[in-house]
Parts: sequence; C-alpha cells; structure tokens
Amino acid sequence: MGVVLNLGEGKRESSIRRLLDLTAADLSEVNALILSKAGSEVAMIPEVANHLISSGGKRLRPMLTLAAARMFGYAGAGHVKLATSVEFMHTATLLHDDVVDESDMRRGKKTARMIWGNQASVLVGDFLLGQAFRMMVDVGSLEALDILSTAASIIAEGEVMQLAAAKNLDTTEDEYFSVIKAKTAALFSAAAEVGPVIAGASKTDRAALRSYGMNLGLAFQLVDDALDYGGDSLSLGKNVGDDFREGKVTLPVILSYRRGTQAERDFWKAAIEDDATDDVALERARALMGRYGAITDTIARARHFGEIARDALAPLPATPQKAALLDVIDFCISRVA
Amino acid sequence: MGVVLNLGEGKRESSIRRLLDLTAADLSEVNALILSKAGSEVAMIPEVANHLISSGGKRLRPMLTLAAARMFGYAGAGHVKLATSVEFMHTATLLHDDVVDESDMRRGKKTARMIWGNQASVLVGDFLLGQAFRMMVDVGSLEALDILSTAASIIAEGEVMQLAAAKNLDTTEDEYFSVIKAKTAALFSAAAEVGPVIAGASKTDRAALRSYGMNLGLAFQLVDDALDYGGDSLSLGKNVGDDFREGKVTLPVILSYRRGTQAERDFWKAAIEDDATDDVALERARALMGRYGAITDTIARARHFGEIARDALAPLPATPQKAALLDVIDFCISRVA
Repeated sequence: MGVVLNLGEGKRESSIRRLLDLTAADLSEVNALILSKAGSEVAMIPEVANHLISSGGKRLRPMLTLAAARMFGYAGAGHVKLATSVEFMHTATLLHDDVVDESDMRRGKKTARMIWGNQASVLVGDFLLGQAFRMMVDVGSLEALDILSTAASIIAEGEVMQLAAAKNLDTTEDEYFSVIKAKTAALFSAAAEVGPVIAGASKTDRAALRSYGMNLGLAFQLVDDALDYGGDSLSLGKNVGDDFREGKVTLPVILSYRRGTQAERDFWKAAIEDDATDDVALERARALMGRYGAITDTIARARHFGEIARDALAPLPATPQKAALLDVIDFCISRVA
Repeated sequence: MGVVLNLGEGKRESSIRRLLDLTAADLSEVNALILSKAGSEVAMIPEVANHLISSGGKRLRPMLTLAAARMFGYAGAGHVKLATSVEFMHTATLLHDDVVDESDMRRGKKTARMIWGNQASVLVGDFLLGQAFRMMVDVGSLEALDILSTAASIIAEGEVMQLAAAKNLDTTEDEYFSVIKAKTAALFSAAAEVGPVIAGASKTDRAALRSYGMNLGLAFQLVDDALDYGGDSLSLGKNVGDDFREGKVTLPVILSYRRGTQAERDFWKAAIEDDATDDVALERARALMGRYGAITDTIARARHFGEIARDALAPLPATPQKAALLDVIDFCISRVA
C-alpha cells in the first residue's frame, strides 16, 4: 500500500516535499506496520481500518514523529512504532468522530459508518486504540507512554467539550481555542515530542518540539475550519459547508456572529441552532464571513500560531529535519492561502 | 460514594463476603480514585461516567486485582491504580456496548446514551480508556501495561467478532467461546494477572492467576447468558429476554437451535434473524430451552470452567486471598443456581 497524497496543485506539494523525502524510508516501514497491526482474523477489522487508513491521509502526524526522532540522532526502531501508534490514535479518533458527527463523507469517500455501520466504527476505533497502546508498550519508553496516553485523554476531553458547546453561539474565541487545542493540537504536540524523548534529547529540546507541535496543530485546525467555508473541496476531500450543516461553532462563525448586526445574529441563530442550513443560507454565511473578514482573520490567527511554532524551533541547529519541519508550517497555512 | 451492591438474597452475599472484607480498605481507595480520575472541567464527563460507575456495579474485576496483588505480599500503592484502570476499561466497554447494542437499560437504570446521547457515550468511554492508560503508566510496570493494553485490543476484537456473528444461527459453540473469551474473559484474566505481576511473583504464580481469571470470566459470561433467559431480572438489573430481543446468538440459543426440530429451527430463524421477538416468542424460546436442557447445559459448561479456575489456584498456599478468590467462583455460578 503506497501513501496516497491528495496534494493538489504544485505549490502545496513542493512545500512538504522535503519532509516526504527525509522520512520516505521510515514511512514505508510505518505503512507496513499499519497493515500488520490493523490485521486480525476478524475480517471486518482490517476492512474498516484500511478503508480509512488507505483513503489518502497525508500521514502528517507520524511524519512529525519520524523527523523529530531523527533530528536528535535516533538510530533505533522505536520511532516507527511510535509513529504508527500516533496514526492509529488519529484513525481511531476519526472513526469515532464520524459516528459522533453523523458524517457521510470523509476525504471524498463514504465514511466507514455509512458502509459498515456505527457499531463497527466504534469498535474498530477501540481496537486501533488498543493496538496503538500495545505498540507504545513494545517500545518501552514510559515517558513516551505518558505523553501519548495523556494526549489520548485530552483528545477525548476536547471532543466532549466540543459536543457540550455544540450549536452554542455564545461560545467565545477562548473556548473555541480550548477545544481545538485539546482535540487537534494535543496529538500534534505529542507526536512531535515523543521523537526527542526516545532519542534521549534534553528537556529543552523536548519542550521545543512539544511547543512546535502544539502551535502547528492550532494553525492546522484553524486553516481546516477556514477551508470548510472557502477551500477547494476537491483537494480537501470534504464538502464546503460540512461544519455549517453540522452546526459547528468554529472561529469563522464566532467572528462573524460577534461582529454582525442583530439581524445577522438572528440569521446565525436560525442556521446554527435551528438547522436552517440550505445552500442559500450557506451562501449568505460565506458572504457575511467575507464582509467581516472572518476567514481572513481566522487565517491571520493561524499565521500567528505558525510564527510561534517557527520560533519554538529557532534555537535548534540547522538540520535537514529542522528545515523540513519548518516547511510543514507553510504547508499547513498555504492550504488556504 | 459508597459501593452499592446489588447482591440480592443472603446466599449470594455470603459467597462474596470474604472478598469484600479483605479488599474493603483498598476498595475505598479505588472508589476515591475513580471519582478523582473521572473528574474533568468538562462537566458532561463526570456526569456520564458517574451515572454508570455508581450504578451498582459489583467492582468484581478491580477486587480481583486487589486480592491477587495482596495474595503475593504486595505492599505498595500501584494495585489501587491498576484496579481503577481495570474498572475504567470495563466502564468504557459498557458505554460503547450500549451504543453498539442500542440498549435502553443497564443495571435497572436508563443507559447513559438514553440520557446524554450516543455521542457522549462514545467520547466519555474514550476519555475513561485514556485515563485508564495514564494510571497504568503512572504505576510504571511495563509488564502490567503489556497485559492490560493487550486485553484492550482483544476485548475490542471480541466485540467486533460478536458484531460480525450477530443474528447468525450457524454460529458454532466454538465460535461463541472465542467471542466470550475475548470480550469478557480477557479482562478478568488481565485483572487477576497484574496482581502477581506488580507483586513481583513468579511466572508460575502469574500463570495461575491468569488461568484463574480466564476461566472465571468464561463461567461468569456463561451464567450471564443463562440469566438472560431465566434469571431473576430484579437482582440482575436487566430485563429477561434482552439478548433475545437483540438477536444475540448466545449458548442457550445455539444449543436449542442445534438440538431442535426443523420447525423449531424455523422459529429460531424468525426470531433471531427476522426480529420476531415479542413476549409470546420469548416464552416459546424459554420453553424450548427447557425442553432441550439448554439453560441447564449452559450452566454445566460454566461449572466446568469454574472447576478449571479452582484447579488453577490449587497449588498455591492457603491464604485468606486464595479462599476469597475461590469463593468468587461459587458466587458467579450461584447467581443462576
């Protein structure tokens, strides 16, 4: 199974090329391990798991682990297992997310729950999470286990926070950041930090990679939320307006709602709280976002965190891995630029 | 929060009394840790978690861990964390199970999914699983981590196996045993084995407790499946016939189907495969089970595994813990006798 990349146009591809080249050999081991560890005599497990795993994800998170370990001279085999664990944690989250959000499509394909049902999505997600922990245990680093198991709790906590805040237009920008920090950035952060951890790097170096991952994750999610209202749906593999139709209170909505007139706030209430989200409503939402600069400012927030991620790595010596990780910041933000 | 025990009549209570007395002090620490680790600033998490955790579960699995650790002279504090992890793994499984089975009631109360929705049940289950792993990591025993993370994978695998075999009357008794071994007995086995593991006991002693737990778990599930057709629904906190209405192919059904006439097999097909499961059908099912000794023989199978569990502990020196663990075998089987 090759890595299928939905990179779209040239600019985007070139931006992540160095990371792809640097991690290519390790990543092919990750892909082999994914196939092996998603395997089971229970045929439904590899069917469901591979449907999602081979559906064109970028393998961005495991590449962070691989590059971050090599950056500090790691020469063992544990980084491949940890990278695979990270991808399994991510996949388990997606399987459960699709059930929670009742999503029909992901990455341009039917979601697993539409083909095999919610039940299989919940249980195969649980299986992948169990396999992720087994691989971490196999590596034997209690510090890496601590980082990744803590991330697992935080991710779930973030998802519940998002559920509790669903359809609530009083959500503040701060509350929104608490959600995306937990549900998205925590895994980016853990994925980056376990690299220096198994390489035996210093506390300072661990903190640098942790901070890089956290801020990169925030930028990534902000751009994702902007793309949902204005991106190119073909390259993203999801439909413009999915978040809108699900009533998700993301930053573009928060900014438009807060900056709008009373009549506009009534429109947002009807849309987000009462599901008035047909195509006409979506076009009005996008127009309001344009009027109030909500997308532009969401991307400006992403750039802000991208700069913090960049500075987190600044003191580290120039290495090919450092250059590649800096590229990733541009890659994430250029998806929408 | 006290431990609420739904023990019903005297015989049953006396059967588990020694284990309760022996583990009482440790168990109150487990209950405190449960409250603490199910806590979160996200209010929905403790609400959902405590609804199930404080709903009268017996804490049987964590008591196995506590007693098994003390049995080998363990004097640290890790057994309380491992026991709490075991209870969280169990609770996470129940939350996900109720979503998968679309269950309305558990232990005589509405299921969490009926109150907070499927989404919260999936996500809070994920949170508890993450917290379970964090506590295991905190204990720091890679061997215990290996045993419990492997159990987590196997449990999920067993649940998928059960899902794939759902409503399939061609399921053999062997296939049924594969399912209950994975979905139920694996956690009993892991719960018992991690006791001697953190106590630094010998491989032989570990193997004895692992075998005890596995066979006890098989007996427990067999009795549970028998109770679903003939038990006292008040003491069990679930309704007689739940498995029947959900089309679950448990051993009482497998035996009745295989031993029946063609006309009776047609009845089972209509019931299990085509949902003809009204009260009249349930009464006919119970009558057929009586005619073919399906409940009696399911309990006979449970006794068989109970004997294996008993012999697994036979070589160990006489200790209060050993006596209490032997009591548990009788307790599990006497639920239905």
